[in-house]
Amino acid sequence: MSAIQPGILRLYLVLDPDLTRGDPEAVADDALAAGVTCLQLRWKSASDRDVLHLASSLASIAHAHQIPFVVNDRLDIALAAGADGVHLGVDDLPLEHARRIAGRDFIVGFSPDSDEAVRRAASRGATYLGIGPFFATLSKADAGPALGPDGFSRRRRLTSLPVIAIGGINAGNAHKPMRAGASGVAVVSAIAGTVDVVQSTRELARALNREI
Amino acid sequence: MSAIQPGILRLYLVLDPDLTRGDPEAVADDALAAGVTCLQLRWKSASDRDVLHLASSLASIAHAHQIPFVVNDRLDIALAAGADGVHLGVDDLPLEHARRIAGRDFIVGFSPDSDEAVRRAASRGATYLGIGPFFATLSKADAGPALGPDGFSRRRRLTSLPVIAIGGINAGNAHKPMRAGASGVAVVSAIAGTVDVVQSTRELARALNREI
Repeated sequence: MSAIQPGILRLYLVLDPDLTRGDPEAVADDALAAGVTCLQLRWKSASDRDVLHLASSLASIAHAHQIPFVVNDRLDIALAAGADGVHLGVDDLPLEHARRIAGRDFIVGFSPDSDEAVRRAASRGATYLGIGPFFATLSKADAGPALGPDGFSRRRRLTSLPVIAIGGINAGNAHKPMRAGASGVAVVSAIAGTVDVVQSTRELARALNREI
Repeated sequence: MSAIQPGILRLYLVLDPDLTRGDPEAVADDALAAGVTCLQLRWKSASDRDVLHLASSLASIAHAHQIPFVVNDRLDIALAAGADGVHLGVDDLPLEHARRIAGRDFIVGFSPDSDEAVRRAASRGATYLGIGPFFATLSKADAGPALGPDGFSRRRRLTSLPVIAIGGINAGNAHKPMRAGASGVAVVSAIAGTVDVVQSTRELARALNREI
């Protein structure tokens, strides 16, 4: 596979319309203009048609900003929407199948749930990993207990892949995952759940840039 | 697209593990040996991983019988499982996207819900259509009112594609959709919900063969 530029993972926005204040397309456009480096759509409550419709629109918005766009869970919808990648969990389509179907240049993100899953992800075809929850989070009901800096750092060292930290990260604590070896942070409500998307994105981007 | 051999659609089993007596793999193996000509897996209540696991197994069973195997709703799982096709509804991935992703030789079945959807299906890339409910059915909660022979026949004439009838069909009434222009019938509980799968399949196959 072609490797991903780690800078692309610096500030990764997971856009979940059910956890977003305001219009998802406007939030994406604002957040991408203000410093988000990668965009993912995660929308588990919607029909396939509705997810595809929004994904197609977000792909256009992301590409206008020259930012990669990834769809959560569903490779078929990612391919249909013209996305650059898919993000898979351990209960989704297995990594090696996604890599085979989508080809070598497609981004295939993965959220491992064990040390063994972290270790095996590179040879199974993952492009990057999302590891969390770094802090406790309310954005994902089944996220499990927080890893904290030590737990994250230990897992991060089990793989050669770039890793983003996810779970409870905001501008005030984003330095912690970066110092624990993350290539970037993924956020849900710290951007899309705020009143001023541009300001919250800029604060996060500034906090992350201080850690380079 | 390459056209499908209409004989493949003669007796189409939709296997839904939630509506199946006994082990789904054993039911499939028995039914294919006894005269089923095409197998579909429909399993809306399971995780992607569980669907993929069963789909991969059913693909092997179907191919051992030289019968095509189709996955309901999910093109990504169909491709990962080594299936021959996918069956899509109006709320699923749009036909033209599925055709583009899967290539010209993949079977793409479609269940249209309107005259207009029937008319447009061939140019959008469908291989065959499933039209129903022919009779009232308990196997699909959102199936809508029965079309009956006249309603089916009218819709059937709106397309050049081969059409299977679905909904409440059994060995006693299967001649009605065939005389209304169907290339075959799709059944759920009339095979998989019976105590003797081999016998119920044979009775259906016999009833259909009388109509050729």
